[in-house]
Amino acid sequence: MIHPHLRKIMKKNIILTALFVMICWSTFAQQALSGGSDLVSPEVHENKTVTFRIFAPKAAEVKLTGDWMPADGRMPGAAAMSKNKDGLWTYTSPVLPSNLYNYSFLIDGLKTTDQNNVYLIRDVASLTNIFTIPGDRADRYDVKDVPHGTVAKRWYDSPGNNMRRRVTVYTPPGYETAKDKLPVLYLLHGMGGDEEAWPALGRATQILDNLIAQGKAKPMIVVMPNGNVAQQAAPGESAKGFYKPTFQLPNTMDGKFEETFPDVMKFIESNYRVSNKKADRAIAGLSMGGYHSLHISRFYPNTFDYIGLFSPAVLPDRKASSVVYKDFEQTLKKQKDNGYRLYWIGIGKTDFLYKNVTDYRAQLDKIGLKYTYQESEGGHTWTNWRDYLSTFVPLLFQ
Amino acid sequence: MIHPHLRKIMKKNIILTALFVMICWSTFAQQALSGGSDLVSPEVHENKTVTFRIFAPKAAEVKLTGDWMPADGRMPGAAAMSKNKDGLWTYTSPVLPSNLYNYSFLIDGLKTTDQNNVYLIRDVASLTNIFTIPGDRADRYDVKDVPHGTVAKRWYDSPGNNMRRRVTVYTPPGYETAKDKLPVLYLLHGMGGDEEAWPALGRATQILDNLIAQGKAKPMIVVMPNGNVAQQAAPGESAKGFYKPTFQLPNTMDGKFEETFPDVMKFIESNYRVSNKKADRAIAGLSMGGYHSLHISRFYPNTFDYIGLFSPAVLPDRKASSVVYKDFEQTLKKQKDNGYRLYWIGIGKTDFLYKNVTDYRAQLDKIGLKYTYQESEGGHTWTNWRDYLSTFVPLLFQ
Repeated sequence: MIHPHLRKIMKKNIILTALFVMICWSTFAQQALSGGSDLVSPEVHENKTVTFRIFAPKAAEVKLTGDWMPADGRMPGAAAMSKNKDGLWTYTSPVLPSNLYNYSFLIDGLKTTDQNNVYLIRDVASLTNIFTIPGDRADRYDVKDVPHGTVAKRWYDSPGNNMRRRVTVYTPPGYETAKDKLPVLYLLHGMGGDEEAWPALGRATQILDNLIAQGKAKPMIVVMPNGNVAQQAAPGESAKGFYKPTFQLPNTMDGKFEETFPDVMKFIESNYRVSNKKADRAIAGLSMGGYHSLHISRFYPNTFDYIGLFSPAVLPDRKASSVVYKDFEQTLKKQKDNGYRLYWIGIGKTDFLYKNVTDYRAQLDKIGLKYTYQESEGGHTWTNWRDYLSTFVPLLFQ
Repeated sequence: MIHPHLRKIMKKNIILTALFVMICWSTFAQQALSGGSDLVSPEVHENKTVTFRIFAPKAAEVKLTGDWMPADGRMPGAAAMSKNKDGLWTYTSPVLPSNLYNYSFLIDGLKTTDQNNVYLIRDVASLTNIFTIPGDRADRYDVKDVPHGTVAKRWYDSPGNNMRRRVTVYTPPGYETAKDKLPVLYLLHGMGGDEEAWPALGRATQILDNLIAQGKAKPMIVVMPNGNVAQQAAPGESAKGFYKPTFQLPNTMDGKFEETFPDVMKFIESNYRVSNKKADRAIAGLSMGGYHSLHISRFYPNTFDYIGLFSPAVLPDRKASSVVYKDFEQTLKKQKDNGYRLYWIGIGKTDFLYKNVTDYRAQLDKIGLKYTYQESEGGHTWTNWRDYLSTFVPLLFQ
């Protein structure tokens, strides 16, 4: 399809036409191979069903697997697609509740991305296509026509790890020109994640933009560090080059991240116009990041007034050698005695960590550390973590 | 493959094991479907050949298409892959010169990405996997163990376009803590690109980090705006949501971008610690961005001391109505008379714009506007534009 405006220009200008044709050449050729450039997939309909399309005339069987489908035993759910006489396969989903979804095609068993959808998110070593269904949930993290903060990828020095490390920093709209000191939320990822996880999978910066625009959250800086101390930066962003990412890295959950956490705080507090008062500091994280938040806030027991544990990997029987894990209950009591404004815990009813969190709550009850507790449907998912962030952030710095 | 360190932890801690297994579940399942997680593709060998692997037992024919292969008529080049008894297809390339390469698989004619390679770059509506071959060229833009600048995605107000617009800003290492005013390079993309093109396809920020670390370039700020005035931001980054990107947009190359260019300059000069002297301002761009650089530097003829035209889409017979394109030769003469330090032109010998650039050079010769000219092998490619940027940047602000 050539845009009518372009057609007009083309008539007028043979050189611009050549430009267009030549630059498009490889794209055109690729599209010829993959079945035409006019294929739209996915197509989100007004009624919130979604049609997926793939041109694969030689395939014997094409399925669609999406994270809204119930699992089939140990395999993700999948639905058969229908082939027409030209080799175009289609599948239309049932009405889907508002959310951000992942999907892939299974072509004769081979998992592939949708070549007609350029929107993908990486989770560890998997890349999957995404789309959103508008409504309550997606309204929180779809990009809206509101003022947007700045998202910076920046490097800081971590003497404790003897390396330069990469961090994602969100500064709210107007930060650069305002004068007042802002509060800070440190937002930590889970195992297999890095400084790209909350911005990409968690859509943290869109959530903040939208909450601030609605007046539901105070303007704040959000700091998303890399929680893997063996890693300088997300895969592909360090001198290690393009390697295959792995889920587990050395020195994970051994205390080193907690021990060296002051490095990133020091960097932020000396490089951004932020308050260094306890009342203006929050820390939260998902899964391993919940574990990190629990331990950091307890190990430095007079540092954070706001703590958020999202599906936290509470492992109270840790026997690792780090000083961080010593005197667990004693330091937790100290944290309680020092005072805080919010200790927030969220977990899904079917999360495999549900029992751990229940046990941890009993421990908190025993020592009298008050917390706000939210139990949601579902399990250990980004759907829950995006929800928890959207609930947690409006409670901060009020 | 489970990391030995993890195996040790697993033995010690049943909960961490559960965490690992549960979070990996969907990854494991996907990997079971696609042939195991231990598959490495691409594998760049010491001798600079590359092996590609894909597990597709049911496919009848699998080919690899890569941008180093000679074109086959109007189709990109492709090489047959070999299947073993288990259904694993492999192909090993010849020795490749150092560069950044793109490739895709063609599975029974269907173009797909490599599920074992998480590194992709988007070009308009195509996503292809990438890898680099170490050596002279890739040394310029591979991430090295050197100080890294900050890369920020930021929004500014463009009254001329009546919209908020997104811009990528690179600030060099140490910018945030230094005191001196820095020079600025405005770096413009080609048709089909946006504010993500130079950072992703052009690896501009890595090129700057490396040149600055080697003392070959002055520390400078690099501003990469979105050159499509109909667009607030790259696809997926505005309230338009997730739509299929198109090559051509309304109001492209009609003068509006040049007319409203002062909006982005004003934003940069009032929000960054930069010099606003002509001697500290450079503008460069590729293809349509070269066209923009030519016209902006001529239309505001006493603004830039450094101009870089990379494979510029020189369209001297423009008859568009914008005031920008009026009095072409007169304003060019004025630019010459006002003085400048560098007018740099680069073009590939097989570029379809070669003749246009030759004609434009004749025009410059006629009016006596001196320029530096570099003719390279190849055509209208990112390989050339990365090279041109690497050559151009060390000449700035000296």
